[in-house]
Amino acid sequence: MSLPTSTTPESFMTSRRSPLLVFSGQSNRPLAQAICDSLGVPLGRSRTEKFTNDNLIVHYEESLREGDVFIVQSFSTPVSDAIMELMLMIDAAKSASAGRVTAVIPYYSYARSDKKDSPRISIAGRLVADLLQEAGADRVLTMTLHAPQVHGFFKVPVDHLSADVVLSQHFKKCVPDAHNGVVLAPDAGSIKRASQIARRLDSGLAMIDKERLSDTEVRPRALIGDVNGKTVFIVDDEISTAGSLVETVNIARSMGAKDVYVAVTHGVYSGPAIERIAALDVTQVASCNTVHVPQSKVDGAGGKLAVLDVAPLFASAIANIHTGASVSTLFT
Amino acid sequence: MSLPTSTTPESFMTSRRSPLLVFSGQSNRPLAQAICDSLGVPLGRSRTEKFTNDNLIVHYEESLREGDVFIVQSFSTPVSDAIMELMLMIDAAKSASAGRVTAVIPYYSYARSDKKDSPRISIAGRLVADLLQEAGADRVLTMTLHAPQVHGFFKVPVDHLSADVVLSQHFKKCVPDAHNGVVLAPDAGSIKRASQIARRLDSGLAMIDKERLSDTEVRPRALIGDVNGKTVFIVDDEISTAGSLVETVNIARSMGAKDVYVAVTHGVYSGPAIERIAALDVTQVASCNTVHVPQSKVDGAGGKLAVLDVAPLFASAIANIHTGASVSTLFT
Amino acid sequence: MSLPTSTTPESFMTSRRSPLLVFSGQSNRPLAQAICDSLGVPLGRSRTEKFTNDNLIVHYEESLREGDVFIVQSFSTPVSDAIMELMLMIDAAKSASAGRVTAVIPYYSYARSDKKDSPRISIAGRLVADLLQEAGADRVLTMTLHAPQVHGFFKVPVDHLSADVVLSQHFKKCVPDAHNGVVLAPDAGSIKRASQIARRLDSGLAMIDKERLSDTEVRPRALIGDVNGKTVFIVDDEISTAGSLVETVNIARSMGAKDVYVAVTHGVYSGPAIERIAALDVTQVASCNTVHVPQSKVDGAGGKLAVLDVAPLFASAIANIHTGASVSTLFT
Amino acid sequence: MSLPTSTTPESFMTSRRSPLLVFSGQSNRPLAQAICDSLGVPLGRSRTEKFTNDNLIVHYEESLREGDVFIVQSFSTPVSDAIMELMLMIDAAKSASAGRVTAVIPYYSYARSDKKDSPRISIAGRLVADLLQEAGADRVLTMTLHAPQVHGFFKVPVDHLSADVVLSQHFKKCVPDAHNGVVLAPDAGSIKRASQIARRLDSGLAMIDKERLSDTEVRPRALIGDVNGKTVFIVDDEISTAGSLVETVNIARSMGAKDVYVAVTHGVYSGPAIERIAALDVTQVASCNTVHVPQSKVDGAGGKLAVLDVAPLFASAIANIHTGASVSTLFT
Amino acid sequence: MSLPTSTTPESFMTSRRSPLLVFSGQSNRPLAQAICDSLGVPLGRSRTEKFTNDNLIVHYEESLREGDVFIVQSFSTPVSDAIMELMLMIDAAKSASAGRVTAVIPYYSYARSDKKDSPRISIAGRLVADLLQEAGADRVLTMTLHAPQVHGFFKVPVDHLSADVVLSQHFKKCVPDAHNGVVLAPDAGSIKRASQIARRLDSGLAMIDKERLSDTEVRPRALIGDVNGKTVFIVDDEISTAGSLVETVNIARSMGAKDVYVAVTHGVYSGPAIERIAALDVTQVASCNTVHVPQSKVDGAGGKLAVLDVAPLFASAIANIHTGASVSTLFT
Amino acid sequence: MSLPTSTTPESFMTSRRSPLLVFSGQSNRPLAQAICDSLGVPLGRSRTEKFTNDNLIVHYEESLREGDVFIVQSFSTPVSDAIMELMLMIDAAKSASAGRVTAVIPYYSYARSDKKDSPRISIAGRLVADLLQEAGADRVLTMTLHAPQVHGFFKVPVDHLSADVVLSQHFKKCVPDAHNGVVLAPDAGSIKRASQIARRLDSGLAMIDKERLSDTEVRPRALIGDVNGKTVFIVDDEISTAGSLVETVNIARSMGAKDVYVAVTHGVYSGPAIERIAALDVTQVASCNTVHVPQSKVDGAGGKLAVLDVAPLFASAIANIHTGASVSTLFT
Repeated sequence: MSLPTSTTPESFMTSRRSPLLVFSGQSNRPLAQAICDSLGVPLGRSRTEKFTNDNLIVHYEESLREGDVFIVQSFSTPVSDAIMELMLMIDAAKSASAGRVTAVIPYYSYARSDKKDSPRISIAGRLVADLLQEAGADRVLTMTLHAPQVHGFFKVPVDHLSADVVLSQHFKKCVPDAHNGVVLAPDAGSIKRASQIARRLDSGLAMIDKERLSDTEVRPRALIGDVNGKTVFIVDDEISTAGSLVETVNIARSMGAKDVYVAVTHGVYSGPAIERIAALDVTQVASCNTVHVPQSKVDGAGGKLAVLDVAPLFASAIANIHTGASVSTLFT
Repeated sequence: MSLPTSTTPESFMTSRRSPLLVFSGQSNRPLAQAICDSLGVPLGRSRTEKFTNDNLIVHYEESLREGDVFIVQSFSTPVSDAIMELMLMIDAAKSASAGRVTAVIPYYSYARSDKKDSPRISIAGRLVADLLQEAGADRVLTMTLHAPQVHGFFKVPVDHLSADVVLSQHFKKCVPDAHNGVVLAPDAGSIKRASQIARRLDSGLAMIDKERLSDTEVRPRALIGDVNGKTVFIVDDEISTAGSLVETVNIARSMGAKDVYVAVTHGVYSGPAIERIAALDVTQVASCNTVHVPQSKVDGAGGKLAVLDVAPLFASAIANIHTGASVSTLFT
Repeated sequence: MSLPTSTTPESFMTSRRSPLLVFSGQSNRPLAQAICDSLGVPLGRSRTEKFTNDNLIVHYEESLREGDVFIVQSFSTPVSDAIMELMLMIDAAKSASAGRVTAVIPYYSYARSDKKDSPRISIAGRLVADLLQEAGADRVLTMTLHAPQVHGFFKVPVDHLSADVVLSQHFKKCVPDAHNGVVLAPDAGSIKRASQIARRLDSGLAMIDKERLSDTEVRPRALIGDVNGKTVFIVDDEISTAGSLVETVNIARSMGAKDVYVAVTHGVYSGPAIERIAALDVTQVASCNTVHVPQSKVDGAGGKLAVLDVAPLFASAIANIHTGASVSTLFT
Repeated sequence: MSLPTSTTPESFMTSRRSPLLVFSGQSNRPLAQAICDSLGVPLGRSRTEKFTNDNLIVHYEESLREGDVFIVQSFSTPVSDAIMELMLMIDAAKSASAGRVTAVIPYYSYARSDKKDSPRISIAGRLVADLLQEAGADRVLTMTLHAPQVHGFFKVPVDHLSADVVLSQHFKKCVPDAHNGVVLAPDAGSIKRASQIARRLDSGLAMIDKERLSDTEVRPRALIGDVNGKTVFIVDDEISTAGSLVETVNIARSMGAKDVYVAVTHGVYSGPAIERIAALDVTQVASCNTVHVPQSKVDGAGGKLAVLDVAPLFASAIANIHTGASVSTLFT
Repeated sequence: MSLPTSTTPESFMTSRRSPLLVFSGQSNRPLAQAICDSLGVPLGRSRTEKFTNDNLIVHYEESLREGDVFIVQSFSTPVSDAIMELMLMIDAAKSASAGRVTAVIPYYSYARSDKKDSPRISIAGRLVADLLQEAGADRVLTMTLHAPQVHGFFKVPVDHLSADVVLSQHFKKCVPDAHNGVVLAPDAGSIKRASQIARRLDSGLAMIDKERLSDTEVRPRALIGDVNGKTVFIVDDEISTAGSLVETVNIARSMGAKDVYVAVTHGVYSGPAIERIAALDVTQVASCNTVHVPQSKVDGAGGKLAVLDVAPLFASAIANIHTGASVSTLFT
Repeated sequence: MSLPTSTTPESFMTSRRSPLLVFSGQSNRPLAQAICDSLGVPLGRSRTEKFTNDNLIVHYEESLREGDVFIVQSFSTPVSDAIMELMLMIDAAKSASAGRVTAVIPYYSYARSDKKDSPRISIAGRLVADLLQEAGADRVLTMTLHAPQVHGFFKVPVDHLSADVVLSQHFKKCVPDAHNGVVLAPDAGSIKRASQIARRLDSGLAMIDKERLSDTEVRPRALIGDVNGKTVFIVDDEISTAGSLVETVNIARSMGAKDVYVAVTHGVYSGPAIERIAALDVTQVASCNTVHVPQSKVDGAGGKLAVLDVAPLFASAIANIHTGASVSTLFT
């Protein structure tokens, strides 16, 4: 497979819904702009403000009647504002007579709340899905949900993009003999993703077995598999404070790993993450631009941070949704 | 009418739902605690945290099975977090088999988004109502919605408390000859509330006619009525930055007002509000504790700020809801 | 702004839904016919009958498959029949495979039941909104709801037309120096509308403060503002028996009003209304044709009754909804 | 089977919902009162009024919190008002925190609109069922639906009472040798009911085969079976104008029927019905009090009209629903 | 009326939804293929399998995005599999972004569960209708529901085809002087259908009155009408084991019937049906191909079994639904 | 933790819902009976039949009014019948006025259809969840869902039991020095469960990495970890044909495993499973009685098959749900 390249706006003429309109919330406007550039359409004009009582208000500054509306919003800090803003945008679009509204959520953070780890909590990944649908979302376009089952939390159609191709191509470019390396899953939850990358690289596979001591404490029990003398590729769905990453790298190193490369879909980089990465014994940490990473963070990581562009993937998916072409054929 | 006083926990024995459980979100725990004290029950044990990716998680630390659960949460800054936390608490309570969940929202801030002032916006007061119901709220208990029609945005039963008695009793205590004064509505939207307070005080009534120049600019056209030489009572539903309040006071002063008293239900006091009040030519500004006002703000207002306690009102309403007694009889 | 004039049927060709079909219930067929004339389309053929057991039945006598269907029905006497007939028409249209059904309700009478004035009543404005949606209404087009918040009682998109332009142009035509007059709001509930008309006329503003003694008794407390020696424009949303109007006029007269003009959106004129108007000391009473006023009533009012035509406004709104153009731009 | 007799109020103590509250709309208060008398409870206090714009408003004058509420309303002339009033009562009851609301509809007139006889009509029996549920009905209690399948139009539980026992006992009392008679179904739609009555009487069965010429015209083709020299029992679900009844009686007479008795569940008696019955060659026409028959009509029918009391049946059903006992065991 | 003949695929160009896609479940692929042949479109490619744990899985092997999808599935043995497969197909089609999904159910077997014959059973005809809609069906196309009221169990639009024309034309072809015959309804439930066929044949009508002794036992009481010396046409909606048919034929014979012809819409032919028919004293038993009848059964019936093709009827209905033409005009 | 033992029926007296009623579908009546025995209540009387057209019908033979109803049904072969029967039972229970209906689904087979492995399929685990809720299920009680995220497919409360304690206690009983063994996950999907069992046994962990070649073909790539000379415990959620199990055992053997023990929650044992197990080089294969295993299969496996009883777990959960006690405390 090769990544989709340019998408010509002429192809939109064949859609039964029109016009194609792409708007953006406040959480990741650079990605939204990049998607629009790739699509060859202008970013839709909307304005979000906060009233003095901290309430949000969203205005669309152009007509949406009958339009095929896509609203790009990642669930990154501040997450609650991002979700509320998206729901207000969806509701306002529906009541302004949009023909169809697709929520484009490159990073659906609440996907991590996907099961009952302890009693009397919310499966928030399902709750937020219900809320988005109640607000009026007709479809969802997202990338690398924490677990693929989260897809099923939505009743409306979901197109679920994978960054696997982007990540594995990145590894291959960095390490020409990647097939001699080992993909390391930091825990059981990421083993399936690691296994798929390993197949793309034709490399080995290993996993760290962890033990949950309490709601917040987790302890590694063992590294299953063999990384000794090998180039190690650590893959996961997201990095926040990089605390778990540091531990994974240390274990890999202690077990004899030669070089360590890291690639994740969502680079949240919160709290001490950038400092930790700067100090970490790895060659590179790469993540996609599903979450906006400001240049200051890239600079702060001492050259170790790479940001991979997924705007073309989202643009192709939007184009195909708009014209009624298959999205699944894009990424296989 | 006299305000309800103590509520004896013994009366709860007659409820068909039990136990009575009151929990609180993070936005106004002092009010929740005061309500519980008034009810004679302990505040329920729950814990809210933020994951490192800024996602919220709520744990209940006691069983809710079959319980009659009330969750106290004001929509004060940060408002989006307050709403998300409340929805997570409702959802977690329902999936933990609570018998009934009542959202107690002393300050429902989005009530101000109650109509289409301009095209292509959300009537967010309705949207948030729908979201709360989707999350699982069986009932709502709130106070002084911006417009009484907002009640109708909810499909579930709503008990809508009024602070009018509290505010007018406060004025009477401050100004024994209140009946010689004039209640001044800062704009057309607050005239009904002003008229009701005027009747309770047996006083005059006046209003400032305003003109909306744009989404954000509003200009006073005239003061309808007569405030010359009179004690003026300004009433409104909320104060945020106090910008509009300053203008109202100035107009009242310029029209010859003698003393000026201000009382509102919701004291948001955002941005420059406290400084402005400290500098304002008024005798006193009073508001209810529906929004938590930290002591530092009270101190900063130079003795002009009074906070009126509505916890007993909420406690009585909760007790009556729990036992199936009439709430409407409490406040007439 | 100038009122929309002719609407050419050619423009309909650009709609993705077709054909445009306008039907009418029994409550105001003359308005429906005028709307169709303005649109240049024939009024759709349908037939409503009562079975001998007083049940209604509606037949459509032409195919509706995939059509963009608008059903015109005012909620005028007999109101329950009007609502039931509209719901039957919506349901029959949906099950006959109409592409979209818009309920055009020039006079949504239950908007007056918009809040809980007393305990244990229905907020019927919300209930009827829910019923219409349950029956299958995809959109609503209406005029001058009693309170603008009633818009938020609907979950489906609503286009809410205002008669303000029509009413204020009418006043200007009748009274060239209208800017020297005073707009008088009969009660606090109509002050916002009065204020908006005052701004359009560049005139003064006054209000009557009323006190509710019981569910049915209301007593005026004072006239706020000054009408002495002025031409007075009384504006409201509707007139039924004209009892409150008589009182308002009398108060205005007793306070020295020179001439009195009355204009409301909805002229219900029930019971003794026409006699009262005939006997009333006003120059003219004007209302829109949202409710059908038979010629006998116009004659009975002794030349004082004027009926203003809003069919072009509705026609323009329907045309814009049909073609996906903005409705909001029409009326600002 | 014997009909249920007195129902002692003491048995209500065992219900988990309380109190038992029975209210009535305006359509058949005598029946509601009779049901309450049979139950030994007072009829609940409520008040229905019409505003001057013909809108209905319903007030409950006692608390409904947590109560087990039954609202009695037949869909008799004016039917649309009856339905709107019932929906307002249901909605007001729910928002006043009733524990459960059962719509008691002795005569559900729209059951006749149960299929698509012609294209582009509403199956109004289903629509009204959906509307009642949208308004908040938790259960329905009704009698002799036009077709038993109409039961399935409701998603909430329905208790569907039959008047067959009442009608057949009435025939037996009138005609001791009823087993020598013939039950005559006026058309194919009533053959099942006729067959069941025939079995209860151990009598013969016959039917008139009719042909629908148009929406409103129906022509008899033949009488299937033999009535010559026999006592004929005509049974149907309702009589409105009695036009079809006159025809049925005439055919029976022309085929040699000896005596003719008529009994139906719902006596609507609209238009010329009473005159026709007075002039008709039958011994007696009986119907139940599901629809209120004023004394003037009974008098006008010249002694031929009998009204059978079904209040005890409804009272027993309500008592059993309230206490959780089986309703089905009552009537078999 | 004449039956619709060929349907040219060119006419599909005028539809706003495209492409037209017809898929089939496993229950009656020959009919689905015949419908496609009549429509001039290929049968859509899909694959249904059973996992080793007996779970079904359905794959569509071509894109459905925006398509107008029709899924043909009769509810024939194994019925539960047929229903589950159809629901999986509907759900998969919706989540694969089909524009509209119409469930084409030639034989909706659960229509027989249309009322509460005994307490504490499900009205399964309504339940299955709700399930199909929950799965995502936008419309339903079906034939000869057991009772026409079952139409009202669906909230989505239903096109309900009748086989009456097919059956009566078949009788006329078999028996040129059919007008001298008698149509015999095997029980009260089929009298309406029998009456309609009788009118089409201009023949007589008769009925067998049956008595239900228990849930499973039914006993004939009498034959109402006269069949002596006549050609008898027995019509019903379905034949399963033919037990009831044997009884009906025997009664007709015992009452002097000359020849007996049988025609039903749905030929289920379960258990001993074929043997019984082979042994039965009738000229012919005809049924439509709504349920697939394998050649072995036709052979087993000794030349008495005829299968009538309704594929052209379904094809015409699908074409008209697709293009937005009236379905009702096809069959009157 | 120790497994719950006897549950005394006296404790039920404290429930606000009563009576407690446990019914069973046809799929696993022995388990339902064992649960009832453990609870000390009789199994509810119900009857399921098939009509001659293969439609299912369910009768309850005792009153359910207000009862707390639990319906036990595993989704085992024939699965579609099991699901349809359960939905009919739920619907019939609701319409028979059950107070609450809990679907007890020991084996929820469609949980395996939990994501989009390939385009244009249904996430049937979500679909079936929606259908059960549409049918009226108020709660669900289940065991060992294929993935824990499937819990979030339900909107109603779910109690999700785990067999981990049962399985690990079984291993410990069989192999006293289990802590020297290795738990082997047959694929990435079962690694989390394997890891949890490993922690309970304090043993090692290993996994087989598999590669999906097509929808139906999967190939092992490697065994990650070390099993050489160790006792190996293979754990999974279910066994159907045992094909994958044979492969796993063979790989383990080829890598030097000493003894092999197998334990899964759901023993489906379809097709050649029993023969394969009889021939397999393992010490024992154990599974729970969530799926009924007939004695003939136990016998056929040559002494290698063990069935572990989970009835006490289900009984305790039902008792706790009924009385409003915490279910989560039972199993930690």
